[in-house]
Amino acid sequence: MKKIYLDYAATTPVDKKVLKAMLPYFGEKYGNASSIHNFGREASVAVEKARKLAADFFGAQPREIIFTSGATESNNLAIKGAVKAYWTDKNNNKKPHIIATSIEHHSILDVCESLKRDKLAEITLVDPQKNGVVKISDIEKALKPNTILVSVMYVNNEIGTVQPIVELGKIIKRYNPKILFQTDATQAVNYFDCDVNRLGVDLMSLSAHKIYGPKGAGVLYIRNSVAVKRIQDGGGQERNLRAGTINTPGIVGLGAAIKEIKNSKFKIKNGKIGELRDYLIGRVLKEIPKVRLNGSKIRRSPNNANFTFQNVEGESLIILLSQAGIAVSTGSACSSGSLNPSHVLLAIGLKPEQTHGSLRITLGKYTTKEEIDYATDKLKIIIDKLRRVSGNVLDEYYHKH
Amino acid sequence: MKKIYLDYAATTPVDKKVLKAMLPYFGEKYGNASSIHNFGREASVAVEKARKLAADFFGAQPREIIFTSGATESNNLAIKGAVKAYWTDKNNNKKPHIIATSIEHHSILDVCESLKRDKLAEITLVDPQKNGVVKISDIEKALKPNTILVSVMYVNNEIGTVQPIVELGKIIKRYNPKILFQTDATQAVNYFDCDVNRLGVDLMSLSAHKIYGPKGAGVLYIRNSVAVKRIQDGGGQERNLRAGTINTPGIVGLGAAIKEIKNSKFKIKNGKIGELRDYLIGRVLKEIPKVRLNGSKIRRSPNNANFTFQNVEGESLIILLSQAGIAVSTGSACSSGSLNPSHVLLAIGLKPEQTHGSLRITLGKYTTKEEIDYATDKLKIIIDKLRRVSGNVLDEYYHKH
Repeated sequence: MKKIYLDYAATTPVDKKVLKAMLPYFGEKYGNASSIHNFGREASVAVEKARKLAADFFGAQPREIIFTSGATESNNLAIKGAVKAYWTDKNNNKKPHIIATSIEHHSILDVCESLKRDKLAEITLVDPQKNGVVKISDIEKALKPNTILVSVMYVNNEIGTVQPIVELGKIIKRYNPKILFQTDATQAVNYFDCDVNRLGVDLMSLSAHKIYGPKGAGVLYIRNSVAVKRIQDGGGQERNLRAGTINTPGIVGLGAAIKEIKNSKFKIKNGKIGELRDYLIGRVLKEIPKVRLNGSKIRRSPNNANFTFQNVEGESLIILLSQAGIAVSTGSACSSGSLNPSHVLLAIGLKPEQTHGSLRITLGKYTTKEEIDYATDKLKIIIDKLRRVSGNVLDEYYHKH
Repeated sequence: MKKIYLDYAATTPVDKKVLKAMLPYFGEKYGNASSIHNFGREASVAVEKARKLAADFFGAQPREIIFTSGATESNNLAIKGAVKAYWTDKNNNKKPHIIATSIEHHSILDVCESLKRDKLAEITLVDPQKNGVVKISDIEKALKPNTILVSVMYVNNEIGTVQPIVELGKIIKRYNPKILFQTDATQAVNYFDCDVNRLGVDLMSLSAHKIYGPKGAGVLYIRNSVAVKRIQDGGGQERNLRAGTINTPGIVGLGAAIKEIKNSKFKIKNGKIGELRDYLIGRVLKEIPKVRLNGSKIRRSPNNANFTFQNVEGESLIILLSQAGIAVSTGSACSSGSLNPSHVLLAIGLKPEQTHGSLRITLGKYTTKEEIDYATDKLKIIIDKLRRVSGNVLDEYYHKH
C-alpha cells in the first residue's frame, strides 16, 4: 500500500542527519550534562553547541535559549512564568492583563483559561478577521494600562495563516515598551524569518519535532531583560528556569535540525513546497465541487492547505484517506479524538457543522508532485463516495439545525 | 585513557536493546500518536504497548500510567496536581497540609517550597535518623487532620538509603485512608520491588534515564481513584493529565528499559552489584584513613556508596578522579555547580565542612571488579595527595569555624 504523509504540521520525520547527530548521545556519550566529570562535560559541550546553533539562528544570545520538552511546555513557561514573575514583584498588586488571539494553539488558550480560573490574570481573546489574519488595530484596541503580555502565534497550525508579528510588535511596544510580546513560532521556523530582533518578540516558543527533529525537545527564547519565573521546580538546570535532567540527545537533535534549515538544499526544496501546495489547491478547488479554502490564500504558510467540503464528515474522510494510504488531518493533532468543532474555524466564521467537513493537508520537504496527484485523485473519489452515501442525511440534518 | 563510569545514580547509558527498540520511531514510524491516520495509529500502538509494559511491571492498570518528560515533571505533577485538585473541589477551604522528608530530591522539596510560598499548602519536612532512614513514628507524629499528601522517596539519590515505604503506607492510611501517599522511585526501579499495591502508594514517579532508558521520558503512576489536575496546559494528551506531543521514541525506550529489568540476565548482574559495592566499601574503609560511610549500611541501595573524607574538598576530588578517567560525584547531579552543602548530608547530621569532603560512587550493570579496583587505587592516591596539599590549610580553617 502507498504511504503518503501529508500531515507535516502534526509532526515531521526525524531527518537522517539529525538522527545521526543524536545517536552518540544515547549509548556512548551518555553523561548527565550537569555532572562535572568528563562524561558530564562531553554532554554539556554538546548541549551548549546546540544552544549556540539555536541562538545564532534566532539572532539571540545563547543564554536567552531555554531548552524544554517541547512547544507546549515553552508556552506554559512563557505565560505562566511571566505572570509568576509579575506577582513575585511586591510592587505589583493589580491583576495583570493578557491578550491572545482566539486562534492560538490550545497550549496558549488553556494556559490563559487556567490563569483566569485561578484569578491570576485577566484575559482578552481577540478574534482574527474572516481570512484568519488578526487585524493590528484589534490588538491595539485591546491594550490596557495593566496589559503585561500579548501572545500571537506566528503561523496558525490549522489554517496556516501568518500573523503580522513585526507590525504587532511595534504597536504593542509603542503603547508600552514594558508589555511582553510572545509568539508561538512552532509552525513558522521551517519557512519564515524567526530572528527575534527583526520580529521584535520577547518570548518565542518552538518544538523540534515540527522541524525534522525529535519529539520531546523544544525551545523557549527569553529576551535577556525579561522576567520569567520557572514553573517546573527542582534542580537548577537551564539557568534555574527549567528543572529536570537535560535531554542531551533531544537537544543535540534540535540543534542539528536547526542547522539543516540553514542548509541551502533545504531552502531550495522549501521554495518548491509553495508551488506544490498551490498546485494542490488549484486542483482541489477546480475538480471538487462545493469546497472552500479556509484562511487567507496570500498570508499563509507555503505548506498548508485547509479545505471545507460541504456535506462531508471530516473524520470519515480522514479514515477513508488513511485506508488509501494518505495521512491528513481534520485540524490539530492535539485535539484529535475530541468531538468539539475546531476553535480556529469557528473564529474565522465557519458554522459548527461546516467545521466538521474540514481537512488539513500539510506538505513537507519530502513531498512530491506524484504524492499530491495521488492524494488529490483519491480525495475526489472519496468525497464523491461520502457525499453519495451521507449527503442526503447530512443535508437533512443541516436543515433542521 | 581509562573511562570508568561510577555515577549511575546521575544517569545511565541507554541499553543497546532499548536504543534498537526506539530507532524506528524517529525516521520511519514518526507519526504523531494523537493523529487518527495510520502513521498516528502506528505510534499510538507503540505508546500503548509501552504503557502496558510499565503497568504490568508496577502492578498497575495502563490508564494509571501517565508519561511525562521525566521524574522532575512527574514529581511536580504529583504534588502540585494533587493540591490543584484539592482547591478545585469547592468543599475544601482549609489550607491542605503536606508532609515530606527533608532528604527528598529537589524536585519534591522545591515544589513544596513553591506551594508554601504561594500559600497553597502548609508543609512539614521530617528529618531522617542519623542513618538516613526516616523513623516511621516521626512521620506518624507529623500527620494532621488537614494532611492530604505524604511524599517519601523510596531510595535516596545521594546516600542510597531505603525508606520503609510499605510500613509508612500502612500507618498513613490507618490515620486517614484519604491521605495520598507518594513516592519518588527514581533510584529504586532497578533494584527494588516497585509494585504499587504491595508498596501501598497512590502516586509514584520515575525517569527512564536512570534505568538504561533515554533522557526526556518518565512516568507518573496515578492510582485510579486519585484526583490530580494537570499542571501543563494544552492538548488533551495522557487523559488530559499532560499536554504536549507524545514523545513516542522516548516512551518506547522507557517501555523497553522496563522490559530489560525483568530480564533474568539483568537480575543476575544486578545481584552482583551489591557484592561489588560491599567490596568497594570494604577496601575504602580499610585502606583510606579518616573516612566515614554516610547512610545506613544495611537499608541501602546495592549500587550506592557515599563517603566523607576528612580534610578533603569534594570538588577537587571529583576533578582529579575525572582526570584519571573516573566519573563519580559529590552528590546529586541536579545540584552540582551549586556551592550549597548537600541538604541530605546536613539532614543526617554532618557539619557543612564535612559535607564538602563527600563522594558518591554509584555502580551499574556494566560495572566490573577491575573498574572498582582501579578506582579505589586512584582514590587512595588522590586523597593522600589532596590531604598533603591542603590538609593543614583545611585543618586550620576547621579549627577556626
